[in-house]
Amino acid sequence: MNHDKSKVPVADLENLYKIFTVPESDNSTLGQIDRNISKNLFGFLTDHIVSSPHSFQDLDEHFFKSRVPEKPSFVSDEAEFLLENIVAKSVHTSSPKFIGHMTSALPYFMLPISKMMIALNQNLVKVETSKVFTPLERQVLAMIHRMIYEKDDKFYSENIQNPNTAVGAFCSNGTIANITCLWVALNQLFPVKPGFDGLAEEGLFTAIDEYGYKGAAILVSKRGHYSLQKAANILGLGKKNLIAIDTGSDNRIKIDALEKKIKELKADNIAIAAIVGIAGTTETGSIDPLDDLADIAKRENISFHVDAAWGGPTLFSDKYKHLLKGIEKADSVTFDAHKQMYVPMGAAMAIFKSEKSLHTIEHHANYIIRKGSHDLGRRTLEGSRPGMALLVYSGLKIISRSGYELLINLGIEKAKTFASIIEEQKDFELISEPELNILTYRFIPEDVKAVLENSNEEDTYKINEFINKLTISIQKEQRDAGSSFVSRTSLEPKKYSGQTITVFRVVLANPLTKTSHLYEILEEQRKISQKLMINKIN
Amino acid sequence: MNHDKSKVPVADLENLYKIFTVPESDNSTLGQIDRNISKNLFGFLTDHIVSSPHSFQDLDEHFFKSRVPEKPSFVSDEAEFLLENIVAKSVHTSSPKFIGHMTSALPYFMLPISKMMIALNQNLVKVETSKVFTPLERQVLAMIHRMIYEKDDKFYSENIQNPNTAVGAFCSNGTIANITCLWVALNQLFPVKPGFDGLAEEGLFTAIDEYGYKGAAILVSKRGHYSLQKAANILGLGKKNLIAIDTGSDNRIKIDALEKKIKELKADNIAIAAIVGIAGTTETGSIDPLDDLADIAKRENISFHVDAAWGGPTLFSDKYKHLLKGIEKADSVTFDAHKQMYVPMGAAMAIFKSEKSLHTIEHHANYIIRKGSHDLGRRTLEGSRPGMALLVYSGLKIISRSGYELLINLGIEKAKTFASIIEEQKDFELISEPELNILTYRFIPEDVKAVLENSNEEDTYKINEFINKLTISIQKEQRDAGSSFVSRTSLEPKKYSGQTITVFRVVLANPLTKTSHLYEILEEQRKISQKLMINKIN
Repeated sequence: MNHDKSKVPVADLENLYKIFTVPESDNSTLGQIDRNISKNLFGFLTDHIVSSPHSFQDLDEHFFKSRVPEKPSFVSDEAEFLLENIVAKSVHTSSPKFIGHMTSALPYFMLPISKMMIALNQNLVKVETSKVFTPLERQVLAMIHRMIYEKDDKFYSENIQNPNTAVGAFCSNGTIANITCLWVALNQLFPVKPGFDGLAEEGLFTAIDEYGYKGAAILVSKRGHYSLQKAANILGLGKKNLIAIDTGSDNRIKIDALEKKIKELKADNIAIAAIVGIAGTTETGSIDPLDDLADIAKRENISFHVDAAWGGPTLFSDKYKHLLKGIEKADSVTFDAHKQMYVPMGAAMAIFKSEKSLHTIEHHANYIIRKGSHDLGRRTLEGSRPGMALLVYSGLKIISRSGYELLINLGIEKAKTFASIIEEQKDFELISEPELNILTYRFIPEDVKAVLENSNEEDTYKINEFINKLTISIQKEQRDAGSSFVSRTSLEPKKYSGQTITVFRVVLANPLTKTSHLYEILEEQRKISQKLMINKIN
Repeated sequence: MNHDKSKVPVADLENLYKIFTVPESDNSTLGQIDRNISKNLFGFLTDHIVSSPHSFQDLDEHFFKSRVPEKPSFVSDEAEFLLENIVAKSVHTSSPKFIGHMTSALPYFMLPISKMMIALNQNLVKVETSKVFTPLERQVLAMIHRMIYEKDDKFYSENIQNPNTAVGAFCSNGTIANITCLWVALNQLFPVKPGFDGLAEEGLFTAIDEYGYKGAAILVSKRGHYSLQKAANILGLGKKNLIAIDTGSDNRIKIDALEKKIKELKADNIAIAAIVGIAGTTETGSIDPLDDLADIAKRENISFHVDAAWGGPTLFSDKYKHLLKGIEKADSVTFDAHKQMYVPMGAAMAIFKSEKSLHTIEHHANYIIRKGSHDLGRRTLEGSRPGMALLVYSGLKIISRSGYELLINLGIEKAKTFASIIEEQKDFELISEPELNILTYRFIPEDVKAVLENSNEEDTYKINEFINKLTISIQKEQRDAGSSFVSRTSLEPKKYSGQTITVFRVVLANPLTKTSHLYEILEEQRKISQKLMINKIN
């Protein structure tokens, strides 16, 4: 391609037309580039390391240019550049030893189906740019709704393709889903009444005033995801009004502490917009007692939302779905497909028990999302959205319930295995037992561990402070070495009287992770610690 | 693949492992499926129709199942199903005669590069799952920032890769970008002061109270995008407090009406969170007088936000960027890449003049987005996000500024051409002149047009009501016929004393749309009208 505009402007325009035109044959330059990229990606995906060692300086070095390039590049040159500088320096989220975060391997069929989605470039905000993707997305939402709420056939046949109702909304991520659900809950707290046109029209200041409250709050355990803070912030409640309730040694919300806080808030005339239950805390995978929370919410007439971004797909498992008992009483549920449904990044859902809940956030315009239209954008927080529903749908059909059950069970049982392996070691300590497929632990040199077990409070504190630093160092060293990856967080285990303890955090969602990988990860941490201790002595 | 779990559960698990494993050769079943999909997509993309005729019943028919399938399907069967029922029933957004919405053809190189993005499955919320995508995304934001604000080299070298500052945030869509910008503006309106910890902590009720206001509002012309209503709603201001200012006959905000409203609000003790200027209204492509708005905002000490979701890329054009003069004075700008940068759906940006603005919405957690970290998720409304920045980056390098200029100029000039063609017709009426590449018009039978031009007010009203119905019918018939597509909206042109007029709306962003296509679209509308009139008479 020759893009030198100053010399041949017409040819240049011709070249531009060409890049918008489908290549005529598989042997076109673009076809060759495509194959070369595929081959290289295969290499990347089968390479069982987590990442190549690159410092921030290394990574940044090619990305300091702030001017938009003036002249075009050849696609082939750019593809080469990307393979060398992007692909080679990315994180292998699909590596079986990448067990630190909630991003895992993808089933390989997601790639050709994603190509379909990208090439069709539908925009789900309205039927005119999404057509069959509209009923497709509605069906996926209904399937997840049915798995959670198990309403009868009549409910689904009436609502699945009914433009006047909605059992949920697709969202780009769990944060948007949590915000959507709490937005709905807040609207329901301040409905229309004589002289007041509802929260959506009048705003929070007027709403609180009209209803005679002194403020409004959301309640969640202190293990709640940080997106709930964002929600409290953007909805105008303020982060102070996302009230963190204490948890027990199992990292689940303490019911008595919740009851006490509700009483206090009522006495203070603070309205409660929602109680949030967590089905799989991000840090420990713990599940709140959803059944109890639902009963309290019902008794107090408070909206009940469940953040099941991580744990939701546990419902695919006949064996383990009992862990989420009570979720069917929730007014709304956040459910991520790009986590345990193994769909590429960008697919979450906000699911609502009532097919009318989303009416409270309906918006209209003159040119699209008109009243009565089939446009999905009438009831989403977001505007333009890609057809990610196609990928979720394909997962549901190709993997199916029984396949997802296998994956879920595999993860939970692998976590149990890993927990016992950790407990067998003389120099590791399990901090949180896995309830789902997440656990936390730390390394303590064998001799230190012996001392710790017989220390008084003051010494225990000091030793823990020392081990916290060691844990951070080990985690960073292991990450930078690049052959495996666990993440870290800090918890306040009862065992150490609430002292902040830094821990390794492990998420076992990749089906390709074997027990041998887990042993290797422990062994590597042990060796790093030895090296660090020796360096310290010298 | 045999997934019959009841018979061979172990084999089943083996099959599950297989779907997570990269196929060994190009000749694998999955390789063949991939090639078959590609071939079919090529066919779809070169098929110059807009859509096949399908009723809602047709579209819905396969999407009434609400139970998650119990047993797995073969990938090959599912691929066949998708080709027949999804691809064939999608909208050809790439068709040169699809000129009704802001979704256009994609440059073909976006497909292999999207495959890269999907296969790598990075999560941009944190460095540990995105690595080199972090500096890449920062660079793209800096390039767009520089195009808008043209700060000096020092500014960019200091900020482009500085984790302590941010010149913008990637967003999944323009709605999220607008909300992000107004969220920041609202936070800046109610900063920390003695006894008050800032809006983010305390919430809107306390903030308005503490600062002694009676409410808070956002000002925008009545042509503002409906996402601004969502923003006013979710931020707790209430839709009533998104105040729509009247526009002139050019569909731009009336400065005197704005000045008047500001005075009124000040007299009423209502705080103004932001003035929003529009650089390319969705319906008419009009650009507000940004320079004047900026001056007013500065004088009144009000945040100034520009919604340039559509028109932003006009800045690539040396010839036309003067149309956006004043945008460089905005505190924040919404800029969509999935519109006029021809990137697949899901790429927008919120760009901020000050590298510190996004500090007001910073969030932290224990396990990621820690203080001081390089994690991009510290300063985004969203959580998990895919690496869409890779696609924007590739557009910037492969198409480059000069290529985008050609595309922008082509669209603007094509719109001018189309406007003159419409004005030449005896039976069409141009309603809004194109300022960018958007215009509106309608069909009026020649004899009716003659009557309309000489009618009194009452008759004019009646004729317009009749033509409005005709316009809706023509638009629907043409859409359903499927060979071309224009959208429709309603405006209140001064010419008809503010009567609501339904119009065809045309967006000329596809470089493959030729003048001959435009003539064909007019001719089809003329014929549909004749058919409708005959049907009415009979």
